[in-house]
Amino acid sequence: MDTAELVELGQQLRVDSVRAAAAAGSGHPTSSMSAADLMAVLLAHHLRYDFDHPEHPGNDRFVLSKGHASPLLYSAYKAAGAIDDEELLTFRKLGSRLEGHPTPQRLPWVETATGSLGQGMPIGVGIALAGKRLDHADYRVWVLCGDSEMAEGSIWEAAEHAGYEHLDNLTVIVDVNRLGQRGPTRHGHDLDAYARRFRAFDWHTVEIDGHDVDAVDRAYGEAISTRGQPTAIIARTLKGKGVHATEDREGLHGKPVKDADEAIEELGGVRDLRVSVHAPPDVRSRRPVGDGGLELPRWDKGEKVATRDAYGEALAALGTARGDVVALDGEVGDSTRAEFFAKEHPERYFECYIAEQQMVATAVGMARRGWVPYASTFAAFLTRAYDFVRMASVSGSGINLNGSHAGVSIGQDGPSQMGLEDLSMMRAIHGSTVLYPSDANQTAKLVARMADLDGIRYLRTSRGESPVLYGPDEEFPVGGSKVLRSSGADRLTIVAAGVTLHEALAAADALAREDIAVRVIDLYSVKPVDRDTLRRAAEETGCLLTVEDHREEGGLGDAVLDAFLDGRPVPRLVRLAVRTMPGSASPAEQLHAAGIDAESIAASARLLVEEAIVR
Amino acid sequence: MDTAELVELGQQLRVDSVRAAAAAGSGHPTSSMSAADLMAVLLAHHLRYDFDHPEHPGNDRFVLSKGHASPLLYSAYKAAGAIDDEELLTFRKLGSRLEGHPTPQRLPWVETATGSLGQGMPIGVGIALAGKRLDHADYRVWVLCGDSEMAEGSIWEAAEHAGYEHLDNLTVIVDVNRLGQRGPTRHGHDLDAYARRFRAFDWHTVEIDGHDVDAVDRAYGEAISTRGQPTAIIARTLKGKGVHATEDREGLHGKPVKDADEAIEELGGVRDLRVSVHAPPDVRSRRPVGDGGLELPRWDKGEKVATRDAYGEALAALGTARGDVVALDGEVGDSTRAEFFAKEHPERYFECYIAEQQMVATAVGMARRGWVPYASTFAAFLTRAYDFVRMASVSGSGINLNGSHAGVSIGQDGPSQMGLEDLSMMRAIHGSTVLYPSDANQTAKLVARMADLDGIRYLRTSRGESPVLYGPDEEFPVGGSKVLRSSGADRLTIVAAGVTLHEALAAADALAREDIAVRVIDLYSVKPVDRDTLRRAAEETGCLLTVEDHREEGGLGDAVLDAFLDGRPVPRLVRLAVRTMPGSASPAEQLHAAGIDAESIAASARLLVEEAIVR
Repeated sequence: MDTAELVELGQQLRVDSVRAAAAAGSGHPTSSMSAADLMAVLLAHHLRYDFDHPEHPGNDRFVLSKGHASPLLYSAYKAAGAIDDEELLTFRKLGSRLEGHPTPQRLPWVETATGSLGQGMPIGVGIALAGKRLDHADYRVWVLCGDSEMAEGSIWEAAEHAGYEHLDNLTVIVDVNRLGQRGPTRHGHDLDAYARRFRAFDWHTVEIDGHDVDAVDRAYGEAISTRGQPTAIIARTLKGKGVHATEDREGLHGKPVKDADEAIEELGGVRDLRVSVHAPPDVRSRRPVGDGGLELPRWDKGEKVATRDAYGEALAALGTARGDVVALDGEVGDSTRAEFFAKEHPERYFECYIAEQQMVATAVGMARRGWVPYASTFAAFLTRAYDFVRMASVSGSGINLNGSHAGVSIGQDGPSQMGLEDLSMMRAIHGSTVLYPSDANQTAKLVARMADLDGIRYLRTSRGESPVLYGPDEEFPVGGSKVLRSSGADRLTIVAAGVTLHEALAAADALAREDIAVRVIDLYSVKPVDRDTLRRAAEETGCLLTVEDHREEGGLGDAVLDAFLDGRPVPRLVRLAVRTMPGSASPAEQLHAAGIDAESIAASARLLVEEAIVR
Repeated sequence: MDTAELVELGQQLRVDSVRAAAAAGSGHPTSSMSAADLMAVLLAHHLRYDFDHPEHPGNDRFVLSKGHASPLLYSAYKAAGAIDDEELLTFRKLGSRLEGHPTPQRLPWVETATGSLGQGMPIGVGIALAGKRLDHADYRVWVLCGDSEMAEGSIWEAAEHAGYEHLDNLTVIVDVNRLGQRGPTRHGHDLDAYARRFRAFDWHTVEIDGHDVDAVDRAYGEAISTRGQPTAIIARTLKGKGVHATEDREGLHGKPVKDADEAIEELGGVRDLRVSVHAPPDVRSRRPVGDGGLELPRWDKGEKVATRDAYGEALAALGTARGDVVALDGEVGDSTRAEFFAKEHPERYFECYIAEQQMVATAVGMARRGWVPYASTFAAFLTRAYDFVRMASVSGSGINLNGSHAGVSIGQDGPSQMGLEDLSMMRAIHGSTVLYPSDANQTAKLVARMADLDGIRYLRTSRGESPVLYGPDEEFPVGGSKVLRSSGADRLTIVAAGVTLHEALAAADALAREDIAVRVIDLYSVKPVDRDTLRRAAEETGCLLTVEDHREEGGLGDAVLDAFLDGRPVPRLVRLAVRTMPGSASPAEQLHAAGIDAESIAASARLLVEEAIVR
């Protein structure tokens, strides 16, 4: 397209953005209008993309980090012939694929769900990293960011990661329209404020007028030809550009243009330009192939092994069997044991340093490209990335997360390092799977099994050693449990997992010596829970005592209740959990102080059994 | 102290760090040894601090952002005479004040709990901002950071905030010891890599040899005399400095020095230097005084008001009555309605832009200085700051958080903007209070009431309007509830809050027309819950039906169970919650699709009542 045509295309994208928002009665047309020329030039001249084959390995990848500018994205889809005008006008309506913020669950051309600002760029970095170091394909990743989201720390985690990894296949376009939701941004139209920050993080930068289509065109060309560095194009734009009533004005964020017909006329009326988007280059897949024969590590019953060690060993074995498995860690791989994988498969290991948001974002980006990522850090520090986990679930992303050093049982390091909210946090994520193994063989089996599940899969591991309870050939279906102590005379059921399972077994043995028979269930699958086994235990023993190295809210105890919330009779329930703020102490002292060690469990059980007699 | 004495003091801090970790059998001496000279010079020459009066308003504030270097901090306390040698050697033991990572809950000189990296500096920025804009006192804030934590995005949110606010009362010292937990950092000893990043964010920087005490001394002087900018001192150091077996060596992070006696000898043996720390300047408090007479806004029953509007109006009124109340927002004040406060009290309003971690960190820093912060953003985006909320609870910090736009009922914007995990997330925080009002007068009362509670207080507000249910003089104690429909013939109890309470009332009215009497409880206090009222309802009606605009895990439904988890008989329970991934649709369509509108509630109630008849 020549300059005039590009200008026309930009106007068309504006008109269609105004029309879509007008039809919806809501949406963000002014945020779309500022970036329309940036999008027009990208679509017409630089993007290489086959809309009929979104999974084409040579396709460039476009991420709309400023997800609220969805009218612009959908208008571009229309210009490219991917959707028609009728569908465009279904924007934000019930059942439409064109949501307020784009998601890949509905639209095949969307790489990742956005709308929580500061996430598209980090995930774009993950995709670019996959391109460079895994796919070995020369697709480019284009990310369109807003200026407001530059305030998010995750942007600078991503900038650091991309600069350090020399991701010259990545171009970030910052639409500096000066206005955030509630007024001016910190830096207004000071392009250099953004440019010098990116340069400090070792990026190439280009500053342009984002409404000068020739300048935009040249900037994209410069980005493509830049070697060894990612490029940030800092574009000066006007929010609501092209319509007098909206251009560069405050107070219009997230609102349809008031007089849409007038605005469309001012923009030159409705057009129907069609863009022939460049085809992607032929790319031959160079994916590593595993040996296929999974040989998980095996331990003998009674051996003392930490589940974090089993995680690392199993992950390394899985990486040998499967070429699509990759591992990431937040600079604690010696603790999480992800380093076992790193040693065997360095080419598929990604050190993310202490940047948990970027670690999860990288995993999401790689999963989008078909890889099976396992990202590890302390369970406590996954709280840092909760918004990324939440949005990964909106994307329908399939990622594996491992949180090590769970609970008070880590000992002396104290509460800052203790994952005590992780089960709750991960259970609340839509469609998630939450696993909490208690021994090495179980851990290994679950590590392998989680690879093929849908959605967010979380595995909680422990710091300290514990005896192996199960043989290496035992199976552990997701949604299952194991009944480890059981008799016809059971007077209550103790439900535990991980560290507290070992305490529960010790308590059961102590109680048995007092002729108090109790059932013990290993609830290694915290979500989904094994409803049948729990219901049977409730019916047969009448009372459930749950014990967890976690806060009382949202963890194992609440998970057990999932089995009874359909209106059926509920057993008597007692929950032991961490109710105080721990300090430093040995692991055994911590478990005792929290009231979740064998002694505390046995004491609670005695009380419950006596109460039952009284009643 | 002269140069030789400063060198000696540095060696003493090393020796004591080695001794403390040796006595504990764990800890981070090598991370302490790298920063010992930095700490020695600060303590002896620049810090102005009265250890006998940690609350002295003129005290400088020191934050150990690299919290794992706690042996260094405690060794400095000993050198200042704040603790004795005997206490030093209780490090990391059960009951000791000297935890693995320092917390203000145990030690009065600690400003904030650290140990989750990348948090001390953001909170230090909050304290410095309080000094400049609230306390109007000329105390300085000194933050000692590790180089590894520079990878956290929160560091750059903080850098942005401090640079933009010209916080020349803030000095950040980066201990560039080259080695993270598992090996070299990204930038090793490249001091300029850090310095140019800080400069890009408008900081003054000084690069020094962190073991040259005279250079350190000069750098601190330069920081103090720098006007209009915060200063970052980038100090080249060696991890494990001073002991051949540990100096600049990998693999020794978080481990006591192997041969402690030999190391102490190499460091010149045990010393007992005492430092006379400079006294703080006299400072007269200039705290604003409110008019004391709280006049909350009042609404008539039946008026249609959004709870977010009531939040904003009540907060503005509270700010008029109380001079210690401050408000923060993440660039969505027009949506959360924090802007109502901003208009009336601009001097106590802090725009944090889209940086939720820094927003919560600023609140924590201001709370430490005695202010009562209210920080607002969309409920969904508080997930971004979960680690900061978790650590605030470890600090025992008293902050108010407001999450607006909760649930699917926001409508067209879709799942990225919907807070669906917030109740779960906040309930799991130790010692938290979780409030979820359904009408304007209730919101106003709770906004005022939460100011004086301990710990993390969370208020959930809604986007859409709803009718006022309560008169303006009604009281709403925390831990209470309201029974809105009740009779002797109630066949079940519907428990709801916020948006779903209005749906529950409509359902109850529809059921009443069918001669099915149901009780309705407004559970505005989600944590703590009103156990007595819930237990009475269970006894009298036999069945509880909970309804929430939230995921089914960890929210209102689980909160209700808190009333029954002591082994008492549990009523039949059914939980209605959001079980699908929403798209774009109108608020009413969303509530219906999620099965939490009046129609769905009534249908569930009918089913339960019929079942009860069958039984």
